[in-house]
Amino acid sequence: MAKALERSIRERVPTLLTDLYQFTMAYAYWRSGRHNEPAVFELFFRDNPFGGGFSLFSGMHDCLLFLQSFRFTDEDVEYLRSVLPPATDPAFFLFLRELDCSGVTLHSVPEGTVVFARVPLMEVSGPLAVVQLLETSLLCLVNYASLVCSNAARFRLAAGSRRKLLEMGLRRAQGPDGGLTASRYTYVGGFDMTSNVQAGFLFGIPVAGTMAHSYVTSFSSLEEVWPQTLVAANGDHDNIDLISLTKGWLGRVCELLGAESGKIHEGELAAFLSYAIAYPHNFLPVIDSYSVTCSGLLNFCAVALSLFELEYSPLGVRLDSGDLCRQSVEVRHVFRLCSEQFSIPAFQSLLIVGTNNISEYSMAELNKKENEIDVVGVGTHLVTCTRQPSLGCVYKLVEVRGSPRMKFSEDPEKSTVPGRKAVYRMLDTEGHPFLDLLCLCEEPAPKACVAVRCHPVVGNKTCQSITPSQVSCLRLEVYTKGQITQPLCSTAETREKVQSSIQTLHPRHKRLQEPDSYIVAVSEKLHNLIAEIRKGSSNNSNFLLAN
Amino acid sequence: MAKALERSIRERVPTLLTDLYQFTMAYAYWRSGRHNEPAVFELFFRDNPFGGGFSLFSGMHDCLLFLQSFRFTDEDVEYLRSVLPPATDPAFFLFLRELDCSGVTLHSVPEGTVVFARVPLMEVSGPLAVVQLLETSLLCLVNYASLVCSNAARFRLAAGSRRKLLEMGLRRAQGPDGGLTASRYTYVGGFDMTSNVQAGFLFGIPVAGTMAHSYVTSFSSLEEVWPQTLVAANGDHDNIDLISLTKGWLGRVCELLGAESGKIHEGELAAFLSYAIAYPHNFLPVIDSYSVTCSGLLNFCAVALSLFELEYSPLGVRLDSGDLCRQSVEVRHVFRLCSEQFSIPAFQSLLIVGTNNISEYSMAELNKKENEIDVVGVGTHLVTCTRQPSLGCVYKLVEVRGSPRMKFSEDPEKSTVPGRKAVYRMLDTEGHPFLDLLCLCEEPAPKACVAVRCHPVVGNKTCQSITPSQVSCLRLEVYTKGQITQPLCSTAETREKVQSSIQTLHPRHKRLQEPDSYIVAVSEKLHNLIAEIRKGSSNNSNFLLAN
Repeated sequence: MAKALERSIRERVPTLLTDLYQFTMAYAYWRSGRHNEPAVFELFFRDNPFGGGFSLFSGMHDCLLFLQSFRFTDEDVEYLRSVLPPATDPAFFLFLRELDCSGVTLHSVPEGTVVFARVPLMEVSGPLAVVQLLETSLLCLVNYASLVCSNAARFRLAAGSRRKLLEMGLRRAQGPDGGLTASRYTYVGGFDMTSNVQAGFLFGIPVAGTMAHSYVTSFSSLEEVWPQTLVAANGDHDNIDLISLTKGWLGRVCELLGAESGKIHEGELAAFLSYAIAYPHNFLPVIDSYSVTCSGLLNFCAVALSLFELEYSPLGVRLDSGDLCRQSVEVRHVFRLCSEQFSIPAFQSLLIVGTNNISEYSMAELNKKENEIDVVGVGTHLVTCTRQPSLGCVYKLVEVRGSPRMKFSEDPEKSTVPGRKAVYRMLDTEGHPFLDLLCLCEEPAPKACVAVRCHPVVGNKTCQSITPSQVSCLRLEVYTKGQITQPLCSTAETREKVQSSIQTLHPRHKRLQEPDSYIVAVSEKLHNLIAEIRKGSSNNSNFLLAN
Repeated sequence: MAKALERSIRERVPTLLTDLYQFTMAYAYWRSGRHNEPAVFELFFRDNPFGGGFSLFSGMHDCLLFLQSFRFTDEDVEYLRSVLPPATDPAFFLFLRELDCSGVTLHSVPEGTVVFARVPLMEVSGPLAVVQLLETSLLCLVNYASLVCSNAARFRLAAGSRRKLLEMGLRRAQGPDGGLTASRYTYVGGFDMTSNVQAGFLFGIPVAGTMAHSYVTSFSSLEEVWPQTLVAANGDHDNIDLISLTKGWLGRVCELLGAESGKIHEGELAAFLSYAIAYPHNFLPVIDSYSVTCSGLLNFCAVALSLFELEYSPLGVRLDSGDLCRQSVEVRHVFRLCSEQFSIPAFQSLLIVGTNNISEYSMAELNKKENEIDVVGVGTHLVTCTRQPSLGCVYKLVEVRGSPRMKFSEDPEKSTVPGRKAVYRMLDTEGHPFLDLLCLCEEPAPKACVAVRCHPVVGNKTCQSITPSQVSCLRLEVYTKGQITQPLCSTAETREKVQSSIQTLHPRHKRLQEPDSYIVAVSEKLHNLIAEIRKGSSNNSNFLLAN
């Protein structure tokens, strides 16, 4: 599978899938002989998404595969020759043709870690021209993966741990690869299953699904049911006529519920019977193609009772329109009545699946309103991240040739934090992280139970002193000298890591609405460096006097 | 290129990239011998996006390539065997292995046409199991392509036709393919260029870009500029020392503008000089890395004046933060002063490029506020479609074995319009479309200048009579018997078609805010069919009496 993923990254992220200015800059560096100067870039985002208190870092594994496969083909180089200005020195294209990431080192937060705004998640160091060329691809791989994983984690928190969550957004995603990325990272973020078969194939995610409305509406009469018989699960009987059996049960169900048989849809019953005969162990129809209470639920109960009689275990029903909570309560009530009346204990606990434009808000409502929904399917709002469709990760230069770099910008919040850094996560006595500290690389690591002075990076807060109970180093070296240096986790392992990383978070940071903000701070030394650079910058034009 | 696109569709849209329930349904059809029954599905969306009055239909060409390449490999089938219930008959997998789209016919609105909510854009007919299997992939290919193309068209309308528009959203898109799809269809929707090199390579879209802030901040002193010399464009001179020349100009610029030289950033000047030496014909730096008025603009003018002196034509500047309108006016003012003072007419009309989180709203503001921006770069809001990140296309069964099908649903607006249809667009005396009419296939086509009775599909509006000046048939047969039957347009040709299609639209429908709603109606005959089916559905359970 690792090989397949590597092949797939080359197809999905061709080396030309980047912004043109990466090449014009690379040329200008090369032209001035600066292309091999050691440089350091950092990747981070400026605000936690969805008005939340945290985010989840994802997409790093794809970045590693991308670094490993990074090369320009002859065809790539020919195309670049046609779009770069004619003045470009032909030797530059030979240089591109030879390029790879053997000189690049990547330090990164592990895939699936809880992270916060303004913490540099990745540090990419290596030859200036190469690490510049990587910008767009790395951003593209991290931005959406982290966003949709964070979105899924919020849906999971809103749903509680009991309910099963099914991702079904492929048709509404940003094209085919958008859909694949969505299925993968929503599973990592805490979903249980996907409808996307290719995602199951590539990433081993459990896949689920039974039928659409079109299946139901494609039937119009019982004459379309074929074969009409089923052998009991225990093998005792000969072929049983399932239509007759079910008609009998339908009469009893109508009687039990005092339902009019006049509104029951024959085509719907035919569809349910056909499906049950094809998949007697996996019977879970969608019951709202016509009317849940007047037709779908009655037809379901009749077919399910026949299946129980033949010693199969039907699975349940899906509701796809209307007020899901109210309907689920009604459906459960009918399940209980059938269970009691016909002495089938399992009938009362059949699954109720709800799918109808579920948002984070409506997911949270499920915990407030009475309902009996066991499995929730989510599509559009999950994969498109309606509430905030972009994480806004950026990639900023912080050091060249050992010297720190900083961008000031006309917008103060777009200024960057200069210098090569180490990032530490401070934990309190209960093991909850409470502050991420950015230090200069050369500073000694902060120690557990020793006070450290720091300056929050956001707001005008003054210096504070904090004493962590534990300190952990947030980033690892994951790629160097052309090699991936940490084992890649499977999708399922990363999913586990996500859940345990979220578990460490204090409830006040995990809250979906108006969480307390988590503090990200710089060390005293880094704070002083920023002040120094700001001062230096406003007084550096002696060069005009020299010649 | 066509071959490359076909190859790329197989990589991007593998046949397993679909929902699992397509396979469970296909099996149930196959099991009951219904898989080859002729069936008809329609693809449509329910509301025009972004609160607008229209949408643009895109993605159809990819659908055609997908149909042509639709096949299951042995590996696909093995995976399906592992996820479908164990009860699945092994012969079904042999059936899948042989499947292709040779029995499918696609009628479609042409790529790049203005379309409206509730009009069936595609009609997919063929063997029931096959046309059902196509659902998710076709939706995935049309949904986002049409949405982002429509979004781009709105940005284009908001920007007016004079300004050039650059798409630069790759890093914020839904993963790599999301970015590629975005670049392609925003160009189709009216953008002029993309930053995405791979999109240029695959689709022939003009690519653009010069430098990021990191390029500027990577320089700290003039010592890093190498080579320091440039030969004049006319070839008259020997190597000219560009640093000395520019220092001279910088002094004059400061004097002209009364600027303090103390705040000018040496590293920024070094970056501009290096870039100008690498690309003297393509000089367009980003000028807000430190301060536009105190440093970036002064450095730009000095380097540009040197280039003009050496008979090159610099291109202009990019602004990437702060109040773009205000800054562009200040920049243009300085350009005019330089032009006049140094007698360089071309200086006043240098390009000003603006890029800073541009939304449709801020684009529209550009037409209201004084500004001097010639080119606008748009990323996040364009590619993620922040205002509405999903179009919500659906795919509904309308006919099986020649008999119309309809879904009722618990939500009335989720009901479908049954039957196989022809779709006509009615034009008024000025050539503006004013109504799309859905008729049953067997009805005679409406005629120009002959009154026709129809019923709007939305709202409780009563029957009305309309008389079109012209009538056009909206859909064409584009695929049948395994062959694409219409020539595929290039990306640039489709872009032309989009612009001329939008041109036909009446301004009241084209308005970005609160447009008049365009009427979509059904013929008298179709209206009656719906009523008949509704009536039939509420009284169809005689089957319970028969045995």
